[in-house]
Amino acid sequence: MPLLVVGSVALDSVETPSERRDDVLGGSAVFFSYSASFFSRVRLVGAVGDDWPSEHTRFLDARGIDVTGLQVIPGGKTFRWRGKYQPNMNDRETLEVHINVLGTFDPVLSDEHRTSKFLFLANGSPTVQHKVLDQLPGAVLTVADTMDLWINIQRQELDRLLRRIDGLVLNDSEARLLTGDENLVRAGQAVRRMGPKFVIIKKGEHGAMFFSEHETYVMPAFPTPDVIDPTGAGDSFAGGMMGYLAEQGNFEPKTLKEAMAYGIVTASFTVEDFSLDRLQRLTRHDLDRRMGEYRRMMSF
Amino acid sequence: MPLLVVGSVALDSVETPSERRDDVLGGSAVFFSYSASFFSRVRLVGAVGDDWPSEHTRFLDARGIDVTGLQVIPGGKTFRWRGKYQPNMNDRETLEVHINVLGTFDPVLSDEHRTSKFLFLANGSPTVQHKVLDQLPGAVLTVADTMDLWINIQRQELDRLLRRIDGLVLNDSEARLLTGDENLVRAGQAVRRMGPKFVIIKKGEHGAMFFSEHETYVMPAFPTPDVIDPTGAGDSFAGGMMGYLAEQGNFEPKTLKEAMAYGIVTASFTVEDFSLDRLQRLTRHDLDRRMGEYRRMMSF
Repeated sequence: MPLLVVGSVALDSVETPSERRDDVLGGSAVFFSYSASFFSRVRLVGAVGDDWPSEHTRFLDARGIDVTGLQVIPGGKTFRWRGKYQPNMNDRETLEVHINVLGTFDPVLSDEHRTSKFLFLANGSPTVQHKVLDQLPGAVLTVADTMDLWINIQRQELDRLLRRIDGLVLNDSEARLLTGDENLVRAGQAVRRMGPKFVIIKKGEHGAMFFSEHETYVMPAFPTPDVIDPTGAGDSFAGGMMGYLAEQGNFEPKTLKEAMAYGIVTASFTVEDFSLDRLQRLTRHDLDRRMGEYRRMMSF
Repeated sequence: MPLLVVGSVALDSVETPSERRDDVLGGSAVFFSYSASFFSRVRLVGAVGDDWPSEHTRFLDARGIDVTGLQVIPGGKTFRWRGKYQPNMNDRETLEVHINVLGTFDPVLSDEHRTSKFLFLANGSPTVQHKVLDQLPGAVLTVADTMDLWINIQRQELDRLLRRIDGLVLNDSEARLLTGDENLVRAGQAVRRMGPKFVIIKKGEHGAMFFSEHETYVMPAFPTPDVIDPTGAGDSFAGGMMGYLAEQGNFEPKTLKEAMAYGIVTASFTVEDFSLDRLQRLTRHDLDRRMGEYRRMMSF
């Protein structure tokens, strides 16, 4: 089933303890789209400036991602992020953020895009997330990401969003901030009571937790020794997960759990190189093979 | 099969964000023994001073733990630890340590104890751990714990120990310290190459990782919302694991994985109250029921 994502499209600059890359292809909607494209058709909606290298658009298009929703804003500049990872590769410091065209981004979807049944609202302001939701009254599964900034400055809009969406994906520190509870099990359950049918807490190198009315479970990250650049891992997780759900066309508990696993496995590849470099060399077969290893790892 | 543990027997004082307890029963060998006693006969070897409340000995004895190896040192004082937990309940600060009788502890095992087939060397100096190993030439499975102190001040003795034992259990920061590698997958594999047949890295609320020549896997912690006091969780994990191995009488890969799971489940109860309070109210049936939940959580 068609899967639509709205989020940031970015040029990232990344410093790790051993390497540095400048102005590489990034952004939540980009990591999400590419990861989901292993499983289903994806429609990417976002905005860039006229500094955007058109080769990136061609690259995503060649991958089969629908880029007709990627607006190029004349005179605008693309969103840029610069970050530096600590030696543990799990903690990072944001050195620079230039919001640029994202500051006034107001997504207006095409008639075709409005028919999408699966929707992922990647990290963005709750105001924009509401506007997108308004345009997809027929969506069967709507999942959103959020971040500390919106929890701090748009809490009311975010609370209203939580009552409109089916699922929320957020990281551990955001779950603690949103609920004031340090225990992630209690925090996850508390976020779920704020509205969404299910909540997923991402824990970076420690995996992810799932909460619905009847289920609470934790799935560890796939243990890869080759962590080169964790940027985009969370969006790649969401892309693998939503892509699999869209492929299966349902979100039964069993499918959701498999989707979580596919998200974890997809993200475990993403971190093995900068930007989309590892995903570009990846096939569905590679994903399924590691999924088999992950399944074996979990069974006893 | 008989399981012997050598380690600390202590009086702990614990501060959590909401409560405080002074001079409660603790110590690595105590948490280990009680946890292992759900699965097999346990022989506890340790030392206390004459300030030791004899009711604690009677309590362990009544549980069926062999306490004949618990020496009371006349004129000596029991090992004491005082610690304070951060609001996240995973990080803690040691406020006071009084080594007391442990400083000169020189375990001499009885003839019966020397026949033990399963041995756990709870945290202690590598020198003492070597002395115990010397007394059990017929042990079939020897597993040790260690800590940052010994890595820093007795590295040579520790390196020699690693070549004598079958398994090592240590926590994530200790694995990083021992190897200089921040990536836990690489660190675990590197520790294994130092000698032990298998290595287990404990990650607190994030579970544990297992490394052998042919296997690397991660198992998440059981997600409990009721974390009251994490003291002893690591030793309780080791106790549940070694107790199950001793019960099964083998350490095949499949048994080791089940043992890891039992260790995780046992520790998930330990943290639900202070000292041994939760374990005292626990039955093997409770353990098996949560083990069933854990198994379901992991299968997809």
